Amino acid sequence: MAANYQTFDNCVQMSTVSVEADRDGGEPGRPTVAILGSGDYSRSLAGRLVRSGFPVAVGSRKPDRNARFFTQGVDVTTRQAALAGDRLVFVAVHRENYPALQADREALAGKILIDVSNNTQLHEAESNAEYLASLFPDSTVVKGFNVLSAWSLSSGLVGGSKEVFISSDDDNARKTVMHLAQDLGFAPVDYGSLRAAREIEAIPLRLLPSWHLALKMFSCVFVIFFLYCLYRIVIFRALQGTNQASHIPVSVMNMTFAGTAITMLCLVYIPGIFAVFAQLYNGTKYKRFPGGLDKWMLARKQLGLLSLLASVVHAVLSLMIWSPSYYARLFENTVTPSGEVEYGKLRWSGETFLLFGTLSLFLMTVLGVSSIPSITNAMNWREFNFVQSKLGWLVLLFAIVHNAVYGAEVFTLPALFSSYTIALFQLTLILPAILILMKVVTLLPCVSSRVDRIRRGWEREKPANRVVTPEEPQEETSLISA
Amino acid sequence: MAANYQTFDNCVQMSTVSVEADRDGGEPGRPTVAILGSGDYSRSLAGRLVRSGFPVAVGSRKPDRNARFFTQGVDVTTRQAALAGDRLVFVAVHRENYPALQADREALAGKILIDVSNNTQLHEAESNAEYLASLFPDSTVVKGFNVLSAWSLSSGLVGGSKEVFISSDDDNARKTVMHLAQDLGFAPVDYGSLRAAREIEAIPLRLLPSWHLALKMFSCVFVIFFLYCLYRIVIFRALQGTNQASHIPVSVMNMTFAGTAITMLCLVYIPGIFAVFAQLYNGTKYKRFPGGLDKWMLARKQLGLLSLLASVVHAVLSLMIWSPSYYARLFENTVTPSGEVEYGKLRWSGETFLLFGTLSLFLMTVLGVSSIPSITNAMNWREFNFVQSKLGWLVLLFAIVHNAVYGAEVFTLPALFSSYTIALFQLTLILPAILILMKVVTLLPCVSSRVDRIRRGWEREKPANRVVTPEEPQEETSLISA
Amino acid sequence: MAANYQTFDNCVQMSTVSVEADRDGGEPGRPTVAILGSGDYSRSLAGRLVRSGFPVAVGSRKPDRNARFFTQGVDVTTRQAALAGDRLVFVAVHRENYPALQADREALAGKILIDVSNNTQLHEAESNAEYLASLFPDSTVVKGFNVLSAWSLSSGLVGGSKEVFISSDDDNARKTVMHLAQDLGFAPVDYGSLRAAREIEAIPLRLLPSWHLALKMFSCVFVIFFLYCLYRIVIFRALQGTNQASHIPVSVMNMTFAGTAITMLCLVYIPGIFAVFAQLYNGTKYKRFPGGLDKWMLARKQLGLLSLLASVVHAVLSLMIWSPSYYARLFENTVTPSGEVEYGKLRWSGETFLLFGTLSLFLMTVLGVSSIPSITNAMNWREFNFVQSKLGWLVLLFAIVHNAVYGAEVFTLPALFSSYTIALFQLTLILPAILILMKVVTLLPCVSSRVDRIRRGWEREKPANRVVTPEEPQEETSLISA
Repeated sequence: MAANYQTFDNCVQMSTVSVEADRDGGEPGRPTVAILGSGDYSRSLAGRLVRSGFPVAVGSRKPDRNARFFTQGVDVTTRQAALAGDRLVFVAVHRENYPALQADREALAGKILIDVSNNTQLHEAESNAEYLASLFPDSTVVKGFNVLSAWSLSSGLVGGSKEVFISSDDDNARKTVMHLAQDLGFAPVDYGSLRAAREIEAIPLRLLPSWHLALKMFSCVFVIFFLYCLYRIVIFRALQGTNQASHIPVSVMNMTFAGTAITMLCLVYIPGIFAVFAQLYNGTKYKRFPGGLDKWMLARKQLGLLSLLASVVHAVLSLMIWSPSYYARLFENTVTPSGEVEYGKLRWSGETFLLFGTLSLFLMTVLGVSSIPSITNAMNWREFNFVQSKLGWLVLLFAIVHNAVYGAEVFTLPALFSSYTIALFQLTLILPAILILMKVVTLLPCVSSRVDRIRRGWEREKPANRVVTPEEPQEETSLISA
Repeated sequence: MAANYQTFDNCVQMSTVSVEADRDGGEPGRPTVAILGSGDYSRSLAGRLVRSGFPVAVGSRKPDRNARFFTQGVDVTTRQAALAGDRLVFVAVHRENYPALQADREALAGKILIDVSNNTQLHEAESNAEYLASLFPDSTVVKGFNVLSAWSLSSGLVGGSKEVFISSDDDNARKTVMHLAQDLGFAPVDYGSLRAAREIEAIPLRLLPSWHLALKMFSCVFVIFFLYCLYRIVIFRALQGTNQASHIPVSVMNMTFAGTAITMLCLVYIPGIFAVFAQLYNGTKYKRFPGGLDKWMLARKQLGLLSLLASVVHAVLSLMIWSPSYYARLFENTVTPSGEVEYGKLRWSGETFLLFGTLSLFLMTVLGVSSIPSITNAMNWREFNFVQSKLGWLVLLFAIVHNAVYGAEVFTLPALFSSYTIALFQLTLILPAILILMKVVTLLPCVSSRVDRIRRGWEREKPANRVVTPEEPQEETSLISA
Repeated sequence: MAANYQTFDNCVQMSTVSVEADRDGGEPGRPTVAILGSGDYSRSLAGRLVRSGFPVAVGSRKPDRNARFFTQGVDVTTRQAALAGDRLVFVAVHRENYPALQADREALAGKILIDVSNNTQLHEAESNAEYLASLFPDSTVVKGFNVLSAWSLSSGLVGGSKEVFISSDDDNARKTVMHLAQDLGFAPVDYGSLRAAREIEAIPLRLLPSWHLALKMFSCVFVIFFLYCLYRIVIFRALQGTNQASHIPVSVMNMTFAGTAITMLCLVYIPGIFAVFAQLYNGTKYKRFPGGLDKWMLARKQLGLLSLLASVVHAVLSLMIWSPSYYARLFENTVTPSGEVEYGKLRWSGETFLLFGTLSLFLMTVLGVSSIPSITNAMNWREFNFVQSKLGWLVLLFAIVHNAVYGAEVFTLPALFSSYTIALFQLTLILPAILILMKVVTLLPCVSSRVDRIRRGWEREKPANRVVTPEEPQEETSLISA
């Protein structure tokens, strides 16, 4: 309930709305709603109810002191007075204060109590809602509205998720609360019986769940490349007596970010290719993908955004050390009579390398920008597919050229292999090359026409398809076409 | 129907909602809806219907095998069973499978069939909806819901366009389906009779239509500048014996992007000035602009974003080659006794040039950021006008200073004109200079007060205004004030 | 009403919707609505009404000439004909044309007139709505819909604020218009009596009100640092005979932006720390913060975005002059036999300095991106808190390292203090150091546990708390937890 952030502009303005007309009881037909508790959440919820035409009675321990924090039209009174009559009751207090409410047990009997609480960590034993239900066996407890912060209750903006998750053992109570949610402008989702309260209470505790897999993959790739470059550039040369440690912060990190960037980009497109091959192998689109492939497919947006992040860091670090001191091979040089080397402009390889890197980065930024929710929502799926898929492969292609041109002239130089490892720019070309090859295979007419038919519902009749049993778990997976 | 992308986080979570209460028939009063077909679209549509309280019966060829892909509360059964009773029927199969549905012709007679299909290309002859209507003359066909992807049906987010386009020959059927769309949380738009299905089916095939004009203008401007720079820097000098081809990738491209950037920026503000002059000439705001000017006005946002893109690419390429090797004139230099030239910090012209370029670019980025839909929607028109118009002219002003300072000291240097063409930095100053001049004219009190009056409805009575005939085409144009 | 911008893609497409079915009177039960006036606003409003099923009659001075600008289904006729019957009337003309409407006084008597006008500046005397009410004492005037631009009326997008503010002296009229607003898909907010029309008319004239405080603070900080650097780098040395004025544009500005960036970042986190100390001192969370602290808390998002802007400008300017000429101390150097200094790669200090600056900037960009409304709305408060608070402190930490490493080796160099002022990099470390110290104090277990209890409702009983009187002004402030 407590919002740890209130940095949004609308907050104060929302609370200064004068609502004179609702003093007498709001719109006819709208029942009075009671709220126990007078913190941030209670205040925002009261304002929202009043603006939607519901009279509100807030039960507080110190009604006189707290009344000033509520909008006009909200009746801030004692708990006893707030609970008079047959009303919906929002229990807007922290879990540890539930026992204190038992003083009003009689007044609460027979009423619907809506548990809006959250926890800062998961309770092993039972959810707050079930705990509340155990304390008030004569009342009906409904879990709901806990995913809303005080800010989203008071804000008038209608963007983003308006979903609220409702569950209760009593069907009628659940439906009543769902209707109230709709009247307040939210989209209720029925979660069934009160046992589901544990799931619902876990929802606001999730920390960017969709990013978990992508971040793990990123960390693995990053660490692998960092150790590889550390060995080639610092450790190996240290063994040979040269101290290059001072170049870890930028030189080594830059190469690490570069390798990570292009590899993450490949990881965005590989699952799609695998999915195509899986469908070709199965001969149908109605067979589930292996579990890991499914999760990988769902992580593609996050993988792409992490690739963009790595690319930008790589670009900036490169810009900072972009000079003949670090990239001598890419600069024109002349040797003066006195034996000094003077550097001038870039050679063709240097200019081409830069151009393709820049173009690749900018197209990738366009992809990233198109992932902003409000921009994604403004596109139809043909436009989105064009940007994410076709432009995406162009990004990869340009990145491969950028990578290849960098080492084109020294690809077979023996000195590169002195540490018994291949150069980074060669290592990073392996995965993209395989990926491009597989993509070309899927573009062949014979292959692509079969894939099209499978996606349109055609199925190859094979004994394999009949072995699928109906007892497989109900857990949903997505039937994603690559 | 088929979604080629399913990269969004919510997809799996949405489909795990347990909806026990709806097993018995959803909310009282909500009629059962049937869906023929069991692919991605059908699955997402079923989930959406169930969450809105409608019981759903899905008719599938293999109900046992496919049932596991649907949420609880959806009755996955045979086609015959799904079509029992008087229900709305969603036909969620591909066009080529329509004839196969004729086996259920009797069950479909007298029902409303909703055609949700899309094509991958436009059919010359007739729309899918009209084709379906021809196969089932005893049913009423309504075209609708085809612009929604499977993802937007299952997602609970409410951002972006929720519009669905409905058309049918039968008024009651159309209204029924429009009400259903509203119940599902969408915004139906009435498109009239079934003939409009061709238009509706074309909508998802559009590929960024608002960008077409801007991209064409960008391409023209880009090619013109590229050829101009190619001639001046490479071809002319090649004719004189110097090979500068290795500098095409960065040097020439950089100048091309720079010229394109400032020209595109001018193209954003020119139509506004033309509109002002058109209104002054006409003496009224109630006369339509010439067709081309209207389209140009509508493309201003895209023109601005392309200008920003070109500016950023120009900035990055410049940063990469920013050194005395490429920009000697802007660096302080001293000649050593041995005749060598040594470069130090930047001269005043170099520093001023950089500062104004940077400020111009960053203000332009603020403009670009304010174009993100969710940010645009949070601004009122006074704020939006302030950013796009006033800040915008500041961007142009700084760009002109950046451009002018670059060549200020060598503006009349004869060597510049050796190729019988003026320098790029002189060419790119022509259009902005004219534009600033025209803008200053419109700011003169006598002119601006008249423009204000015209916008507030004043009209100059001239014979020209009376010649306007009522038979002009109904085609809508926008009455845009500059 | 007049929209000075119409750059959005949807505009023309929206107006080509054919709405045949509504010719005969729209949906049954929807009353006809009249609009006086035929400009942009009237046109968009008419389209919106028709799409929501309301028949519309537009009263225009020149119905024949103007009819072509309206969608089909809108009856464009004379004012007299449009006002027939008992209808809601939108008065969509400019204030100076109100007296001209008195010709239809009789037709308007007894009707509800909705004043949708805006002004370009605030009128001292009375609002447009009250002026209209004085001209038509037999009609009921309702203020509303003025915050919508013509574009947001015609656009089908549902993002951003859909709020409309309604006020009227007549309760029933106000409720009627609020219901109409809901039917059109907007969220009405009740503002009470017609006196509130002055507030409502002021709303669209606000120019980024949430940014005012942050911009003032930014300007102060910026000017202070600019004068400080100007003195140290240019003025002091000018007094000593060296002209460094040519380095104001980039060198001095760069240092100014750098100092401003890190100081603005501190200003984001200071109010939170103050709030914690205030709550500790008060012993309760139910006492209001001092007025200034409250406003400062609300400005934190804008302060952060300005810090990001300054950081990016600083980064780009630094990149441009990043060379041994400007930053000799950070480069490896060797002295040739002939006494010349040659520079090579960066020293460890240079590379570390760059790495931490880059990481700090990129994390700050992630924070900035998470402020985009559609992305903010997709996060729950735990995720938002993680990004803004935890990542935020990491940004500050990296910035401090970046700052400290820059001068670590010369911290006590006497030459730095020749101008009787400390170096910029030392000055900019003072505020962050104090801030980190205060933050560490709040993280001590004894302190943080007490803060937690206070936030969960615990109060220390002190005479101070009982002195709070109920007569304090009703003006709302936010109870923000730090």
